[in-house]
Amino acid sequence: MKEVKEKPILLAHGDGGALTHQLVQDLFLQHFKHEALQAQNDGALLKALSGPPVLSTDSFVISPYFFPGGDIGKLAVAGTVNDIAVTGAIPLYLTVAFILEEGLPISDLEKIVASLAKTAEEAGVAIVAGDTKVVERGHGDGIYINTTGLGYMPAERHLGYHQIQAGDKIIINGTIGDHGLSILSTRAGIAFDTELSSDCAPLNHLIEAILQSCPGAVKFMRDPTRGGVATTAKEIALASEKDLILDEEALPIGETVAGAAEFLGLDPLYMANEGKVIIIVDGERAEEVLATMRELPHGHNSAVIGKVEEKKSHKGQLYVKTHFGSHRILDMIAGDPLPRIC
Amino acid sequence: MKEVKEKPILLAHGDGGALTHQLVQDLFLQHFKHEALQAQNDGALLKALSGPPVLSTDSFVISPYFFPGGDIGKLAVAGTVNDIAVTGAIPLYLTVAFILEEGLPISDLEKIVASLAKTAEEAGVAIVAGDTKVVERGHGDGIYINTTGLGYMPAERHLGYHQIQAGDKIIINGTIGDHGLSILSTRAGIAFDTELSSDCAPLNHLIEAILQSCPGAVKFMRDPTRGGVATTAKEIALASEKDLILDEEALPIGETVAGAAEFLGLDPLYMANEGKVIIIVDGERAEEVLATMRELPHGHNSAVIGKVEEKKSHKGQLYVKTHFGSHRILDMIAGDPLPRIC
Repeated sequence: MKEVKEKPILLAHGDGGALTHQLVQDLFLQHFKHEALQAQNDGALLKALSGPPVLSTDSFVISPYFFPGGDIGKLAVAGTVNDIAVTGAIPLYLTVAFILEEGLPISDLEKIVASLAKTAEEAGVAIVAGDTKVVERGHGDGIYINTTGLGYMPAERHLGYHQIQAGDKIIINGTIGDHGLSILSTRAGIAFDTELSSDCAPLNHLIEAILQSCPGAVKFMRDPTRGGVATTAKEIALASEKDLILDEEALPIGETVAGAAEFLGLDPLYMANEGKVIIIVDGERAEEVLATMRELPHGHNSAVIGKVEEKKSHKGQLYVKTHFGSHRILDMIAGDPLPRIC
Repeated sequence: MKEVKEKPILLAHGDGGALTHQLVQDLFLQHFKHEALQAQNDGALLKALSGPPVLSTDSFVISPYFFPGGDIGKLAVAGTVNDIAVTGAIPLYLTVAFILEEGLPISDLEKIVASLAKTAEEAGVAIVAGDTKVVERGHGDGIYINTTGLGYMPAERHLGYHQIQAGDKIIINGTIGDHGLSILSTRAGIAFDTELSSDCAPLNHLIEAILQSCPGAVKFMRDPTRGGVATTAKEIALASEKDLILDEEALPIGETVAGAAEFLGLDPLYMANEGKVIIIVDGERAEEVLATMRELPHGHNSAVIGKVEEKKSHKGQLYVKTHFGSHRILDMIAGDPLPRIC
């Protein structure tokens, strides 16, 4: 018998009254210290931005909400920070909105909030506004989180699909499939011999270092989350109207992921990542970018994984050059066997 | 037997692949036309703001998602637009993130998206970024929506609790309790003789007109949503360290709401509103503000409903002067009998 009973979230925590205020005072404001949040106004008044605003939003419904290498709080910060950073912008502020299910242990919420605050600090972004709603048992799954990020675009940064040209190289900052496979194995209760954990991480410092160290080298960036590297690369091919050719031999894949994927019949190219960025760079500057990345946190295993060519048919396609030297067309993911990966 | 079967949302609509893209192309981009959204980047690059940014976020979990006078889409725009407008800022942009439950009829989603787009147009805000997640049956309730708003604060606007002084008057822009009671009656299947509908509406144009027509008259504003007028007024009393005295006789309450509230034993002061704003104004300028409001949409039934006095105890309190002339202390709502009102 447990001596101290876990306190659960009640419907009344979401009614906007006394219990909501208690939750805000005793939990959220203990972890989120920005003055705009502490002021508790309906909207957060912030300092003027040093450039045009960049906004991005993402809701997180990952199951389970604690997983090897992270939790839904860390993920909610990393995901939105990365979405802003890949545009070339500097993320500054986050809003955080919780949808809690009645019965969620408050101790779980506290762990998640602490992780959210810690990851925000690591990324150098401030949590400036929030919201909490509670739904009845059976209408949620513990906790869903929306984060929306605001940043600004520094002058002279013009990344975009239209910059991509034949001859460009495709770089990734490390191994693929780690997030997807960790979630899958956690959910299925499969234990692998070696440790497997999500790559979930904010990449804004890595990205900013590349943009500052190698000005003009980067054409376009995107983080290959849901749908994996293949789905993201296919989107880039379609939007840029170029062919992208991935080199199967060059793909950085961890030993455990490679073995597990083979065992389970899954392709790491379609498995989600939460701490990876695909970077399309000027072909002649690929080595320079790579050298910079390998010196930086979250960049040690960076590799050139492919190249851009003129399209051979009426639209841009994604190919993978296999171990046997043949080329195979890849499509977007369709019917992921693994829902709620983020 | 139905000839055309309703198409439902599938888990694969949330996998980031082919079906997600189809939903984005065939539904969202048909209704949301802003160039930043159409560009389909991870983050939306916007025009530079004419002042410091103001951010606000809200998730909406209202049940049912269609109700008299509105739906979750209209509510999601009005709610966040109003949260920004009450700070004195001009709302410009919204992000919209959906959490859909597997099985949601796509026709329902389309109605909600159309309503969202229409309300955003009415409010003059652009939807610039979005996200869609799908959860399995039994882990949601049709649809939850997060909207996050970005606006800017024009120069020389300094609304805040610290501006509130004894002698100020309390104004509201119309009848109270309409939203709460409509949802309650819809949910309980109660029909009232006369029509009852939610007051759900974006108030930014009304608020901006007041601020421009009566410069310096407004001290503070807040929208009395969850918890109703009493909970919001109590928050203002606590934060400003003043006493707020509401005049029961002056409260604008529609006939149906008054009758139904009495019948059900509920107090309209604690019922949610979604198209109302409480405005604390300089006492000497209350009539000027009132005259301006009564000429404007969403302001016809505006009324002075109370006043501000120096606090009589160690903290600011909320009182209501009853029909009998006595004063009664009011607290925040605690344990709303009506969860998921917004």
